[in-house]
Amino acid sequence: MTDADASTILQGLRGSIDNIDAALIFLLAERFRCTKQVGVLKAKHGMPASDPTREEQQIARLVQLAEQADLDPVFAEKWFNFVVAEVIRHHRSAASEPAGESAAG
Amino acid sequence: MTDADASTILQGLRGSIDNIDAALIFLLAERFRCTKQVGVLKAKHGMPASDPTREEQQIARLVQLAEQADLDPVFAEKWFNFVVAEVIRHHRSAASEPAGESAAG
Repeated sequence: MTDADASTILQGLRGSIDNIDAALIFLLAERFRCTKQVGVLKAKHGMPASDPTREEQQIARLVQLAEQADLDPVFAEKWFNFVVAEVIRHHRSAASEPAGESAAG
Repeated sequence: MTDADASTILQGLRGSIDNIDAALIFLLAERFRCTKQVGVLKAKHGMPASDPTREEQQIARLVQLAEQADLDPVFAEKWFNFVVAEVIRHHRSAASEPAGESAAG
Protein backbone atom coordinates (compact mmCIF):
# COMPACT_ATOMS: atom_id res chain seq x y z
CA MET A 1 0.00 0.00 0.00
CA THR A 2 1.33 3.45 -0.94
CA ASP A 3 1.39 6.35 1.54
CA ALA A 4 -1.38 7.99 -0.58
CA ASP A 5 -3.59 4.88 -0.21
CA ALA A 6 -2.90 4.88 3.54
CA SER A 7 -3.92 8.53 3.72
CA THR A 8 -7.24 7.81 1.94
CA ILE A 9 -7.99 4.93 4.32
CA LEU A 10 -7.05 7.14 7.28
CA GLN A 11 -9.55 9.81 6.14
CA GLY A 12 -12.29 7.17 5.92
CA LEU A 13 -11.55 5.83 9.41
CA ARG A 14 -11.52 9.37 10.79
CA GLY A 15 -14.97 9.95 9.29
CA SER A 16 -16.24 6.89 11.17
CA ILE A 17 -14.55 8.00 14.39
CA ASP A 18 -16.16 11.46 14.08
CA ASN A 19 -19.62 9.90 13.63
CA ILE A 20 -19.10 7.59 16.62
CA ASP A 21 -17.86 10.52 18.74
CA ALA A 22 -21.00 12.54 17.95
CA ALA A 23 -23.13 9.57 19.01
CA LEU A 24 -21.05 9.16 22.20
CA ILE A 25 -21.45 12.85 23.12
CA PHE A 26 -25.24 12.75 22.69
CA LEU A 27 -25.50 9.51 24.67
CA LEU A 28 -23.31 10.94 27.44
CA ALA A 29 -25.58 14.00 27.49
CA GLU A 30 -28.62 11.74 27.88
CA ARG A 31 -26.84 9.76 30.63
CA PHE A 32 -26.24 13.01 32.55
CA ARG A 33 -29.88 14.03 32.07
CA CYS A 34 -30.79 10.79 33.89
CA THR A 35 -28.13 11.08 36.58
CA LYS A 36 -29.09 14.71 37.26
CA GLN A 37 -32.64 13.52 37.97
CA VAL A 38 -31.17 10.83 40.24
CA GLY A 39 -29.15 13.54 41.99
CA VAL A 40 -32.22 15.69 42.62
CA LEU A 41 -34.18 12.68 43.95
CA LYS A 42 -31.32 11.63 46.23
CA ALA A 43 -30.87 15.16 47.55
CA LYS A 44 -34.60 15.59 48.26
CA HIS A 45 -34.90 12.22 49.99
CA GLY A 46 -31.64 12.36 51.92
CA MET A 47 -30.01 9.45 50.08
CA PRO A 48 -26.18 9.45 49.86
CA ALA A 49 -24.65 10.84 46.63
CA SER A 50 -22.55 7.70 46.17
CA ASP A 51 -23.90 4.13 46.27
CA PRO A 52 -20.97 1.65 46.34
CA THR A 53 -23.17 -1.48 45.99
CA ARG A 54 -24.89 -0.13 42.87
CA GLU A 55 -21.50 0.95 41.44
CA GLU A 56 -20.02 -2.52 42.02
CA GLN A 57 -22.97 -4.08 40.16
CA GLN A 58 -22.57 -1.58 37.31
CA ILE A 59 -18.85 -2.26 36.99
CA ALA A 60 -19.36 -6.06 36.98
CA ARG A 61 -22.00 -5.70 34.24
CA LEU A 62 -19.93 -3.26 32.14
CA VAL A 63 -16.84 -5.48 32.37
CA GLN A 64 -18.95 -8.37 31.05
CA LEU A 65 -20.37 -6.20 28.23
CA ALA A 66 -16.85 -4.96 27.39
CA GLU A 67 -15.66 -8.56 27.05
CA GLN A 68 -18.57 -9.32 24.68
CA ALA A 69 -17.72 -6.21 22.66
CA ASP A 70 -13.97 -6.99 22.58
CA LEU A 71 -13.22 -3.80 24.51
CA ASP A 72 -10.41 -3.92 27.11
CA PRO A 73 -12.38 -4.52 30.36
CA VAL A 74 -9.71 -2.71 32.40
CA PHE A 75 -10.23 0.37 30.24
CA ALA A 76 -14.04 -0.01 30.50
CA GLU A 77 -13.77 0.06 34.30
CA LYS A 78 -11.43 3.08 34.30
CA TRP A 79 -13.76 4.85 31.87
CA PHE A 80 -16.79 4.11 34.07
CA ASN A 81 -15.01 5.41 37.18
CA PHE A 82 -14.10 8.58 35.28
CA VAL A 83 -17.76 9.21 34.34
CA VAL A 84 -19.06 8.30 37.81
CA ALA A 85 -16.64 10.74 39.47
CA GLU A 86 -18.32 13.51 37.47
CA VAL A 87 -21.80 12.24 38.39
CA ILE A 88 -20.93 12.21 42.12
CA ARG A 89 -19.61 15.76 41.78
CA HIS A 90 -23.01 16.75 40.32
CA HIS A 91 -24.91 14.89 43.08
CA ARG A 92 -22.92 16.63 45.83
CA SER A 93 -23.54 19.95 44.15
CA ALA A 94 -27.32 19.18 43.93
CA ALA A 95 -27.34 18.18 47.62
CA SER A 96 -25.77 21.50 48.65
CA GLU A 97 -28.34 23.58 46.70
CA PRO A 98 -31.71 24.60 48.16
CA ALA A 99 -34.41 22.04 47.22
CA GLY A 100 -36.17 24.41 44.80
CA GLU A 101 -33.00 24.92 42.78
CA SER A 102 -32.20 21.21 42.73
CA ALA A 103 -35.64 20.42 41.32
CA ALA A 104 -34.95 22.71 38.38
CA GLY A 105 -31.48 21.15 37.77
CA MET B 1 -43.47 12.49 47.01
CA THR B 2 -42.96 9.62 49.48
CA ASP B 3 -39.61 7.85 49.85
CA ALA B 4 -41.28 4.76 48.27
CA ASP B 5 -42.29 6.82 45.19
CA ALA B 6 -38.76 8.20 44.98
CA SER B 7 -37.37 4.67 45.12
CA THR B 8 -39.63 3.59 42.21
CA ILE B 9 -38.55 6.58 40.10
CA LEU B 10 -34.90 5.86 41.00
CA GLN B 11 -35.26 2.27 39.73
CA GLY B 12 -36.70 3.56 36.44
CA LEU B 13 -33.88 6.05 35.95
CA ARG B 14 -31.31 3.34 36.75
CA GLY B 15 -32.87 1.14 34.06
CA SER B 16 -32.36 3.95 31.52
CA ILE B 17 -28.79 4.55 32.72
CA ASP B 18 -28.00 0.83 32.34
CA ASN B 19 -29.34 0.83 28.75
CA ILE B 20 -27.35 3.96 27.88
CA ASP B 21 -24.20 2.45 29.44
CA ALA B 22 -24.53 -0.69 27.32
CA ALA B 23 -24.84 1.49 24.19
CA LEU B 24 -21.82 3.56 25.29
CA ILE B 25 -19.68 0.44 25.84
CA PHE B 26 -20.50 -0.98 22.40
CA LEU B 27 -19.87 2.40 20.73
CA LEU B 28 -16.55 2.76 22.57
CA ALA B 29 -15.63 -0.74 21.40
CA GLU B 30 -16.42 0.27 17.80
CA ARG B 31 -14.39 3.48 18.23
CA PHE B 32 -11.38 1.42 19.35
CA ARG B 33 -11.83 -0.95 16.39
CA CYS B 34 -11.43 2.14 14.17
CA THR B 35 -8.54 3.66 16.12
CA LYS B 36 -6.70 0.32 16.18
CA GLN B 37 -6.86 0.29 12.37
CA VAL B 38 -5.56 3.89 12.42
CA GLY B 39 -2.74 2.76 14.73
CA VAL B 40 -1.71 -0.06 12.38
CA LEU B 41 -1.78 2.29 9.37
CA LYS B 42 0.26 4.93 11.20
CA ALA B 43 2.82 2.38 12.38
CA LYS B 44 3.22 0.86 8.89
CA HIS B 45 3.57 4.25 7.21
CA GLY B 46 5.78 5.87 9.85
CA MET B 47 3.19 8.47 10.89
CA PRO B 48 3.40 9.79 14.48
CA ALA B 49 1.07 8.15 17.06
CA SER B 50 -0.28 11.54 18.15
CA ASP B 51 -1.62 14.23 15.78
CA PRO B 52 -2.15 17.50 17.73
CA THR B 53 -3.82 19.37 14.81
CA ARG B 54 -6.40 16.61 14.33
CA GLU B 55 -6.98 16.44 18.10
CA GLU B 56 -7.56 20.22 18.31
CA GLN B 57 -10.16 19.97 15.51
CA GLN B 58 -11.85 17.05 17.26
CA ILE B 59 -12.01 18.90 20.59
CA ALA B 60 -13.44 22.06 18.96
CA ARG B 61 -16.12 19.96 17.25
CA LEU B 62 -16.97 17.93 20.36
CA VAL B 63 -17.23 21.06 22.51
CA GLN B 64 -19.73 22.46 19.97
CA LEU B 65 -21.70 19.17 19.93
CA ALA B 66 -21.67 19.10 23.76
CA GLU B 67 -23.17 22.60 23.84
CA GLN B 68 -25.93 21.49 21.44
CA ALA B 69 -26.59 18.44 23.63
CA ASP B 70 -26.55 20.47 26.88
CA LEU B 71 -23.54 18.50 28.12
CA ASP B 72 -20.88 20.41 30.10
CA PRO B 73 -18.29 21.22 27.38
CA VAL B 74 -15.46 21.21 29.94
CA PHE B 75 -16.41 17.64 30.87
CA ALA B 76 -16.70 16.69 27.17
CA GLU B 77 -13.13 17.87 26.58
CA LYS B 78 -11.79 16.05 29.67
CA TRP B 79 -13.65 12.93 28.58
CA PHE B 80 -12.19 13.13 25.07
CA ASN B 81 -8.65 13.57 26.42
CA PHE B 82 -9.18 10.54 28.65
CA VAL B 83 -10.21 8.37 25.66
CA VAL B 84 -7.45 9.75 23.40
CA ALA B 85 -4.78 8.98 26.02
CA GLU B 86 -5.82 5.32 25.74
CA VAL B 87 -5.78 5.47 21.93
CA ILE B 88 -2.24 6.94 21.90
CA ARG B 89 -1.15 4.18 24.29
CA HIS B 90 -2.50 1.64 21.75
CA HIS B 91 -0.81 3.43 18.81
CA ARG B 92 2.56 3.46 20.59
CA SER B 93 2.13 -0.22 21.36
CA ALA B 94 1.26 -0.96 17.68
CA ALA B 95 4.33 1.02 16.56
CA SER B 96 6.62 -1.03 18.78
CA GLU B 97 5.30 -4.38 17.50
CA PRO B 98 6.67 -6.10 14.39
CA ALA B 99 4.59 -5.11 11.30
CA GLY B 100 3.02 -8.57 10.98
CA GLU B 101 1.65 -8.48 14.51
CA SER B 102 0.37 -4.92 14.16
CA ALA B 103 -1.57 -5.88 11.01
CA ALA B 104 -3.41 -8.55 12.98
CA GLY B 105 -4.14 -6.17 15.91
